[in-house]
Amino acid sequence: MNRHQFPALTNKAYFNYGGQGPMPQAALDAILAGYQQIQSAGPFGLKTSELVVRESNLTRQAIALDLGVTAQSIALTENVTVGCNIALWGLDWQPGDRILLSDCEHPGVIASIQEICRRFQVIVDIFPIQATLNTGDPVAVVTAQLKPQTRLVVLSHVLWNTGQVLPLAEISAGIRQYPDADRQIRILVDAAQSVGLLPLKLDELGIDFYAFTGHKWWCGPEGVGGLYIHPNAMNSLAPTFIGWRSLDYSQPDLPLIGDARRYEVATSAYPLYAGLRAAIKIHQDWGSAIDRATKIVSLATYLWESLQRLPEIKCLNHTAPRSGLVSFQVGSRNHGKLVQSLEQAGFYLRTIVDPDCIRACTHYFTTTAEIDELVQCLTKLT
Amino acid sequence: MNRHQFPALTNKAYFNYGGQGPMPQAALDAILAGYQQIQSAGPFGLKTSELVVRESNLTRQAIALDLGVTAQSIALTENVTVGCNIALWGLDWQPGDRILLSDCEHPGVIASIQEICRRFQVIVDIFPIQATLNTGDPVAVVTAQLKPQTRLVVLSHVLWNTGQVLPLAEISAGIRQYPDADRQIRILVDAAQSVGLLPLKLDELGIDFYAFTGHKWWCGPEGVGGLYIHPNAMNSLAPTFIGWRSLDYSQPDLPLIGDARRYEVATSAYPLYAGLRAAIKIHQDWGSAIDRATKIVSLATYLWESLQRLPEIKCLNHTAPRSGLVSFQVGSRNHGKLVQSLEQAGFYLRTIVDPDCIRACTHYFTTTAEIDELVQCLTKLT
Repeated sequence: MNRHQFPALTNKAYFNYGGQGPMPQAALDAILAGYQQIQSAGPFGLKTSELVVRESNLTRQAIALDLGVTAQSIALTENVTVGCNIALWGLDWQPGDRILLSDCEHPGVIASIQEICRRFQVIVDIFPIQATLNTGDPVAVVTAQLKPQTRLVVLSHVLWNTGQVLPLAEISAGIRQYPDADRQIRILVDAAQSVGLLPLKLDELGIDFYAFTGHKWWCGPEGVGGLYIHPNAMNSLAPTFIGWRSLDYSQPDLPLIGDARRYEVATSAYPLYAGLRAAIKIHQDWGSAIDRATKIVSLATYLWESLQRLPEIKCLNHTAPRSGLVSFQVGSRNHGKLVQSLEQAGFYLRTIVDPDCIRACTHYFTTTAEIDELVQCLTKLT
Repeated sequence: MNRHQFPALTNKAYFNYGGQGPMPQAALDAILAGYQQIQSAGPFGLKTSELVVRESNLTRQAIALDLGVTAQSIALTENVTVGCNIALWGLDWQPGDRILLSDCEHPGVIASIQEICRRFQVIVDIFPIQATLNTGDPVAVVTAQLKPQTRLVVLSHVLWNTGQVLPLAEISAGIRQYPDADRQIRILVDAAQSVGLLPLKLDELGIDFYAFTGHKWWCGPEGVGGLYIHPNAMNSLAPTFIGWRSLDYSQPDLPLIGDARRYEVATSAYPLYAGLRAAIKIHQDWGSAIDRATKIVSLATYLWESLQRLPEIKCLNHTAPRSGLVSFQVGSRNHGKLVQSLEQAGFYLRTIVDPDCIRACTHYFTTTAEIDELVQCLTKLT
């Protein structure tokens, strides 16, 4: 692994993979080549129309391969939040329906759910998953809150604040076994922190919708993400924002496309698709999804163990992390100011509001030297 | 004007500005510089957060300046269709409400309206604007179809199929004077073919929502557009797809932002914003919006006059065009095959399904030599 493939890593110690991954030079080169190709062949015409269809297909295929599903179940989106919104707004909401939401979801998704509640007289229930980081049974915590009117459960695969990995297969099995459901309960997963981090076979998880982005753990360009829709859930999910990309132009009355492309809207920054594929390829060339996840977790564990030795620092995790996210609190310091000082010193981390903490992420190409330097810097600053 | 600023123009005669404008090299350079800047400063951290806010503000400001409105009324979107969807889905639809739609709208927008009708028991009325290209009164045609339950009128500023420029100010005045409206009638304009073509002062048009894209007449990168929302219409338009960009992080309960940013969702391809600004600047450096529009129309007129001399060709316009779009029919030929032959010969045009025709666009940097060569090629092929 040549870290010089990532220009962003040449001038800093980077621990913000959960915010945005550094883009490999190969991805930037592919984006540039994509622009040149489109300008040379068009930019608009018969050749470029074919090119754009081909690029989109290749991108859905590359994504699908990494997630263990078919390309027909992948819709390309601008980001993970748009993917969540497609799932949230596409259900046939009735007054009195309930959404069961974890207490660790991203503010944008929460705000969208609040608007759905306002418009359709839907009610939100919250399940307290944050408290299960070190003790307790996540499956029981979710299923205890199910009600006959629950129509959708919304949760993350890897919690963005604490880094906890939720046992999705067990949770979805627990939800499916709930005997009192009025209608089938759908499950929407915010996968912002899992895609590119965990080895995934989505069809084994029993979930309906899985929204992700390419620009975090995959290190693709910002502005490209996607939504997986389980084939059995597609008929229950109407597209909301619709455009020419949703339509089947091979038929005279332009019906909605039969697969997940119906959730795509209109013109996107197509050259970025090649950038995302180039980024995914770099990871695959390095090693299998399992090897990468193992390395990510081992480096996170190294960081976690090192932080454990600092008296001022309290890691949220009481045992070794299971993902690449390590969140910690510093007893004596304002977290915002500390992150500012760290960035000035060349160490990139971020604050989290709830729980009030600092989050550091390790990727498979993080080095132990980088971690040692971060720990030294933290020792000095705390 | 150095046409070599546009790489796409070096190897073809281009008449598809209404599909996608050729991106100037300066825009591509700005995009590349944007990526390098973000990677160097982050990609995620305190510095890049500020950078992204600044880039977004500068882009809304540059757009607003060209449209004659305030930056607070501009939301950045991925494309024109998303802008239309924000307006369509944000109104408080009630069963029995009616949408009045022109018969020249884009299939994607029509499909979105059909879905709104299905979900909220809304009814569509159509006004036959296509037939007013050469005779008739567009204002009368629109207002004749208003009903007390009409809540939204949807039309284009420049019709994408025939190139007709609709008298928006007069139409909106006519709609405002309709005495029997149950509630205020809102007006949504598809501005795909007007932004970057017509000189615009949106606040003089009396319209509520104006959805546009940067990648057609502005020649910016694909994947960046916007929506103008009249300040008086903002309270009637709830955001639908919502994300962290919709929220005011300066307040602890994260309310929706008070201006048009509330309609933005989440992470976009920020480096493209600088690309769009670079493209807009090239046009401004060439001349005023009025000068550019005058030149565009004069070149379209030159094309229209040249086509009039070909016996096989019938222009849809009976008088000189008022925009940069020139649509025509070829008596003896299949339009699809002809466009294919033209592209093979280096002339880029497109077909339109309704009315069945071929569309050629001129920009202010189109040359008369290019037009002469197109006319010669058409003479040979027809």
